[in-house]
Amino acid sequence: MDMSGGRERLVVIGGDAAGMSAASQARRLRGPDKLEITAFERGRFSSYSACGIPYWVGGDVAERDELIARSPEEHRARGIDLRMGTEVTRIDVAGKRVRARDLASGAESWTPYDKLVIGTGARPIRPDMPGADAPGVHGVQTLDDGQALLDTLARTRGRRAVVVGAGYIGVEMAEAMINRGYEVTVVNRGSEPMSTLDPDMGRLVHAAMEGLGITMVNDAEVTKVLTGPEGGVRAVATEDGEYPADVVILGIGVRPETSLAQAAGLPVGAHGGLLTDLAMRVRGHEDIWAAGDCVEVLNLVSGQEQYVPLGTHANKHGQVVGTNVGGGYATFPGVVGTAVSKVCDLEIARTGLREKDALRVGLRFETVTIESTSRAGYYPGASGMTVKMLAERRTGRLLGVQIVGREGAGKRVDIAAVALTANMTVEQMTALDLGYAPPFSPVWDPVLVAARKAVAKVNSR
Amino acid sequence: MDMSGGRERLVVIGGDAAGMSAASQARRLRGPDKLEITAFERGRFSSYSACGIPYWVGGDVAERDELIARSPEEHRARGIDLRMGTEVTRIDVAGKRVRARDLASGAESWTPYDKLVIGTGARPIRPDMPGADAPGVHGVQTLDDGQALLDTLARTRGRRAVVVGAGYIGVEMAEAMINRGYEVTVVNRGSEPMSTLDPDMGRLVHAAMEGLGITMVNDAEVTKVLTGPEGGVRAVATEDGEYPADVVILGIGVRPETSLAQAAGLPVGAHGGLLTDLAMRVRGHEDIWAAGDCVEVLNLVSGQEQYVPLGTHANKHGQVVGTNVGGGYATFPGVVGTAVSKVCDLEIARTGLREKDALRVGLRFETVTIESTSRAGYYPGASGMTVKMLAERRTGRLLGVQIVGREGAGKRVDIAAVALTANMTVEQMTALDLGYAPPFSPVWDPVLVAARKAVAKVNSR
Repeated sequence: MDMSGGRERLVVIGGDAAGMSAASQARRLRGPDKLEITAFERGRFSSYSACGIPYWVGGDVAERDELIARSPEEHRARGIDLRMGTEVTRIDVAGKRVRARDLASGAESWTPYDKLVIGTGARPIRPDMPGADAPGVHGVQTLDDGQALLDTLARTRGRRAVVVGAGYIGVEMAEAMINRGYEVTVVNRGSEPMSTLDPDMGRLVHAAMEGLGITMVNDAEVTKVLTGPEGGVRAVATEDGEYPADVVILGIGVRPETSLAQAAGLPVGAHGGLLTDLAMRVRGHEDIWAAGDCVEVLNLVSGQEQYVPLGTHANKHGQVVGTNVGGGYATFPGVVGTAVSKVCDLEIARTGLREKDALRVGLRFETVTIESTSRAGYYPGASGMTVKMLAERRTGRLLGVQIVGREGAGKRVDIAAVALTANMTVEQMTALDLGYAPPFSPVWDPVLVAARKAVAKVNSR
Repeated sequence: MDMSGGRERLVVIGGDAAGMSAASQARRLRGPDKLEITAFERGRFSSYSACGIPYWVGGDVAERDELIARSPEEHRARGIDLRMGTEVTRIDVAGKRVRARDLASGAESWTPYDKLVIGTGARPIRPDMPGADAPGVHGVQTLDDGQALLDTLARTRGRRAVVVGAGYIGVEMAEAMINRGYEVTVVNRGSEPMSTLDPDMGRLVHAAMEGLGITMVNDAEVTKVLTGPEGGVRAVATEDGEYPADVVILGIGVRPETSLAQAAGLPVGAHGGLLTDLAMRVRGHEDIWAAGDCVEVLNLVSGQEQYVPLGTHANKHGQVVGTNVGGGYATFPGVVGTAVSKVCDLEIARTGLREKDALRVGLRFETVTIESTSRAGYYPGASGMTVKMLAERRTGRLLGVQIVGREGAGKRVDIAAVALTANMTVEQMTALDLGYAPPFSPVWDPVLVAARKAVAKVNSR
């Protein structure tokens, strides 16, 4: 191990959730006398909640800085040499060093490392079409994106917003714009919104969004953004029609930002994310770890790698990587694919496999869909929810759950997430001792109602 | 098997949740041509939600009948001969018959059975003290109790209520009386309310209840109920003082109603509840099953029998028993001790073992207590919650979780309930893939924050 002045040198690429969680945890375990930590971030902000941007835009969060968990100064006060506005341009794996450029001065230099953490995150998918860069077209991945959108909204008189994409970001931005009093149209490539659900559950989201006054356009690919005489956005065009727009929000998702890692010969998977071992060490590389939106993770249900860019995973990865580079031991066993979202009072949740995921990996299954309520039917505020459950044929093993409902629906997916992690069968689930009282649940929790019905269906085959 | 006219004869004692769930499930599996079902209920109501009574009294539920899941007529329409107002006075195990008395006419007769289901429920604990039967002193176990209390409230001018007992029923009745505009005093034998929690967590409930304007009197045993000149309740006395009361509500809990079963020589455990096998067959008796508040169940964490009178278990037991007597196969593996309750906007939840439970069964453990929030800290409506976690020494196995908080706190206990069922360690829990989005959770769910801290504590020993 190449030690510098007796101290080990840790270099972190990326100053957001994953990288800075790793740096902070490593610092907790090893003081500055033992470990020197240098982190490079090309942007202006560190450790912020990108997931919070829709709520900032929508007005639920008043100030940008509320989304910042820890500022560069706070990191530096903890003994992490965080260099903002500095982009790493090359990883020299053989030489164990990274080359970084100060974006303001253009100055470049090499920094050697004993251990390297890659937390380069994701880059937004931008449609390759005319007008995509017109004023008034905005992504919402970064705080700068959010500020630019807010600036546009402040100076635009029209109140028509078109959201491109109907995944989590799309529906959250639809809510944000509804909250700001806009007329909202969501243009969606898929047959139903929320393609992370099966289409039959997506249909419920579709109906509920229309109930909220959102215009849903499904099976529609945006072909261009039309601009007005002054160059600003005027409408969005698909093959079938035009949708007037004073602002266009792109919520089409992200891809792993791994160009730097790939140029250095590090292994990436089918989704373009870095491949790591269970300790989150880049495969085949003793001294390089990766964390957050730039990695692929094992889906414990499908047995295959998956790309799940989510802040909660980035933080967990960072914790695991920081523990390991700090001399401790931790692993990230994988995910089961849990996600929860809301659009106004509609809650949408999923975990495990959709039908098409299960088919793709060779699983045969039964599906059941049930209607229940969030509280005892007689208790005030009880609201309906739909639960869909997939169970493996013959074994009855739980494969996935999808929930669409109102208050109290979304976080019920956690029951299934833990059951999936524990490889439970739907029969085992029927005996789960879940919290019951009339204000919290019917006497049979909706997840158990689904499990009971799934047991009957599995047993009937 | 003694068959009558080719049909097997099932007799059910008790027409509430457990007994009628069993009867209904047996009927679903076997039609009237195969199975004759006779059920005896001494009261006036069938299949009702006793857990809903506090909300009916408090005014959240407008009508008594909303608490009735299925009326006697509905059961009869499904081919169950449900005899209301009929009390079983003897079980003749050797002769395979039960003796029942029609309470109106006094007529008695024997009914033979091939299979017997005992669902005799619980009886309320009534303090043995002067004045306990005075007008204005009410239990809240049955619909008749609830109606009697409502009648008292309708004709009483005073607005001072004393609730005796600070368990689930006590705190729920405190809420009910607050909702009706009463001044509420809760007199509690324990050192803190909610003795199903450790005292340090009970203290949080105590503080919150006082914040709601409820007067909490702890470490106090009610010695008598004082009556006024017209015989009605005037005050409640403890060794230390008197508490004026226009109405007194007894919420001291229940015991298994097993006198009939004990007289027939059936086995009961240390808590007085019937002992069954995993199929919920009474131990040592091929043809007798038991379900609901009259049985003891295995606590999967402590490995010992426990008495847990809860509607959700009664329904599950009934489902298991009905499946088995109907010719199918099902088991009730046990409970982990989950319970959730609320008093106004305070949510209280627990699962697994308290410190004293763990000590009693020989477990050594670490405890951690953390503060977190129900949503991302920056998201509107994020409310604080306290999570306490017990993990076994050395192994790190999860032993129990207690949660006190506001909206969104209570049902989080389900995460721990499933993890307990799956025998997870706190280290395994830190990797749980729980639903995350700012309106639903901080980036680390509060249960995972506790798990992380528990891991650190287990590892440091």
